[in-house]
Amino acid sequence: MREVAVIGVGLSPWGEVWESSLRTLWTQAAVSALADAGVDKIDAITVGSMAPGLYVGQEHLGALLADELGVAGVPATRVESACASGGVALKAAFAEIASGLADVMLATGVEKMTDVSGDECTAALAAAADAEQEVFYGATFPGLYAMMARAHMERWGTTREQLAEVAVKNHAHGALNPHAQFRQKITVEDVLNSAKIAEPLNILDCSPITDGAAAVVLAELSLAKKLAKGRPIVRIAGIGHATDRIALHSRVDMTTIPATTKAAQKAFSTAGRAPKDVNVVELHDCFTIAEIIVLESLGLCPPGEGGKQAPSGRTALGGALPTNPSGGLKSKGHPVGATGIAQIVELTTQLRGEAGPRQVAKARVALAQNMGGTGASSVVTVLEVAS
Amino acid sequence: MREVAVIGVGLSPWGEVWESSLRTLWTQAAVSALADAGVDKIDAITVGSMAPGLYVGQEHLGALLADELGVAGVPATRVESACASGGVALKAAFAEIASGLADVMLATGVEKMTDVSGDECTAALAAAADAEQEVFYGATFPGLYAMMARAHMERWGTTREQLAEVAVKNHAHGALNPHAQFRQKITVEDVLNSAKIAEPLNILDCSPITDGAAAVVLAELSLAKKLAKGRPIVRIAGIGHATDRIALHSRVDMTTIPATTKAAQKAFSTAGRAPKDVNVVELHDCFTIAEIIVLESLGLCPPGEGGKQAPSGRTALGGALPTNPSGGLKSKGHPVGATGIAQIVELTTQLRGEAGPRQVAKARVALAQNMGGTGASSVVTVLEVAS
Repeated sequence: MREVAVIGVGLSPWGEVWESSLRTLWTQAAVSALADAGVDKIDAITVGSMAPGLYVGQEHLGALLADELGVAGVPATRVESACASGGVALKAAFAEIASGLADVMLATGVEKMTDVSGDECTAALAAAADAEQEVFYGATFPGLYAMMARAHMERWGTTREQLAEVAVKNHAHGALNPHAQFRQKITVEDVLNSAKIAEPLNILDCSPITDGAAAVVLAELSLAKKLAKGRPIVRIAGIGHATDRIALHSRVDMTTIPATTKAAQKAFSTAGRAPKDVNVVELHDCFTIAEIIVLESLGLCPPGEGGKQAPSGRTALGGALPTNPSGGLKSKGHPVGATGIAQIVELTTQLRGEAGPRQVAKARVALAQNMGGTGASSVVTVLEVAS
Repeated sequence: MREVAVIGVGLSPWGEVWESSLRTLWTQAAVSALADAGVDKIDAITVGSMAPGLYVGQEHLGALLADELGVAGVPATRVESACASGGVALKAAFAEIASGLADVMLATGVEKMTDVSGDECTAALAAAADAEQEVFYGATFPGLYAMMARAHMERWGTTREQLAEVAVKNHAHGALNPHAQFRQKITVEDVLNSAKIAEPLNILDCSPITDGAAAVVLAELSLAKKLAKGRPIVRIAGIGHATDRIALHSRVDMTTIPATTKAAQKAFSTAGRAPKDVNVVELHDCFTIAEIIVLESLGLCPPGEGGKQAPSGRTALGGALPTNPSGGLKSKGHPVGATGIAQIVELTTQLRGEAGPRQVAKARVALAQNMGGTGASSVVTVLEVAS
């Protein structure tokens, strides 16, 4: 199997981007990644997007966006696994290069979420859950993650303050990231006093609604070395993808995410790495409880100790395991289809040593974890500086 | 690059299937394909589906359907390229096996289209066109293909009767297919006298709205040979995928589909084959004019002579180039995300010599052409009996 490296990264503006349409946001990210890579020819495109039909009345994003980029003709495919759509777009592009079907690919993600009302947006996101067994009965994602939080608190003694500490840390990181949607620092009191959404989660435990796009250029490793021009080469050392029972009530245990554990095992074994080797992490903190559970499910801390990680400083910049240096979904924003690709953008920037004030010192091995629904889909990627 | 073969095929019931939901249809096709292949373990799943969010309020089909099949845990990804979603699901699964990421894959397609009103269905299908540049101005697919038909008639002298002959032929084929949605034979007069939809297209020029699913099991070739149990092995000899300007008004020429030509060139060159080698074809006759244009774009007849193929008998069962022996989209039905996979089901059945009364004699090399929108996405696959 051929090896694959990331040779270019790009982001559109993220936030409530009223002045741009989906295609414009995507093209900004794509052009930026191609310029960063220094290539003007790509063999194929993947586009991760969760629900453009529901958000902007547009499916068929592959052809639409290849056309918008000015490369109509190039094979272009949308892939979707709810909020893990970016992760599966990366994996699909990885497979095409690994197989020899392509040498250079543009792997992207995009979501334009603010062109609909809040209720319509919640309904579109709910399409990641089981429509017949969860959504029809009134479940929404804040409600589902609230149940996971309550179960984790009950089982492991995780506290309301520990949840808040995740948001505080990620906002502190995001304050250093010019691409973040919310760059203000917040306090534990801010989180505790913010509007209640679904007990025990308040509004500042929730990632925001975001318009945005992200893109990475991938190349076969030997070609990547030729194109590197002295910059560090970031290799995809391992990628794992797994699913789980989709409905939360079908799971044996709501306090862990087995799809993330399975995907991580695959990614680590392919990379020949273990959790102890990881220097920097971007993970899917769609809600504060998610970061806590995911750290445990990845094997980056023991079961039940996820809540202690942010308060201890371990997962902050300067700690032993900086987690979500970009600000994470919480502060950087969460355009759902783009998130999995944006994680790779951040980690590539970190491994290149180009992250400026939020740079993680001596980052050589990085891990990205992206998930859909309440964890029914998960993609875990291990990135390394190639020697 | 590793070689890939089709080792099992399956279809759900197709039609207005009121008594089944999307997940039930899909699972029927998947179980049927796995039973046909004689395997009970798969490494990963791809699901082609165009607009389940708009049709049934459900995205995240990968995880949902892996769960429904009882294999939660297995990586499962939805892929989408409008009505070419099945084709890209095949290609994505092909890439995973070719790369070595998987040995056995389930490549599938599904659409549940009759749970919404006719207007909602037309709107969902329109999401395959350019929402901002076509749909907002009132374009729908019958209207867009009507313009293509008018342009083809104007340029090449194609007649209203020649369009009708395509529908007559495909219904004659579908009458022999127990899986077809509409099994009645029709006449040229029936077509000419049927309700007008978008001049010059009548209702009997249009493929129907269909609920249905299709599945194929793919395996690495040497493994496929071990599992064959004496049945012919159907190899994917070449697969091509291309895009084009998405909006019809952006194209230089409305009477040809360049994405199909590009995809075919790639598929033929990989297979080491030419149009003259093809014994049987399944192509994307979403409207009668589409079959005419696609035959030309594939190089299976000279430009401008597509209209003469059905009246001459060449593309009928018993002719030199039987086209759409299944009945095609017109008679077999067109659950949009499933169609590209169902074409592979039909051609595998033909190459195995298991097509019963619609069997094409001495079929050794087969071609499938699946497209999205007005041809902005196209996937062409060459299948062969492996020696």
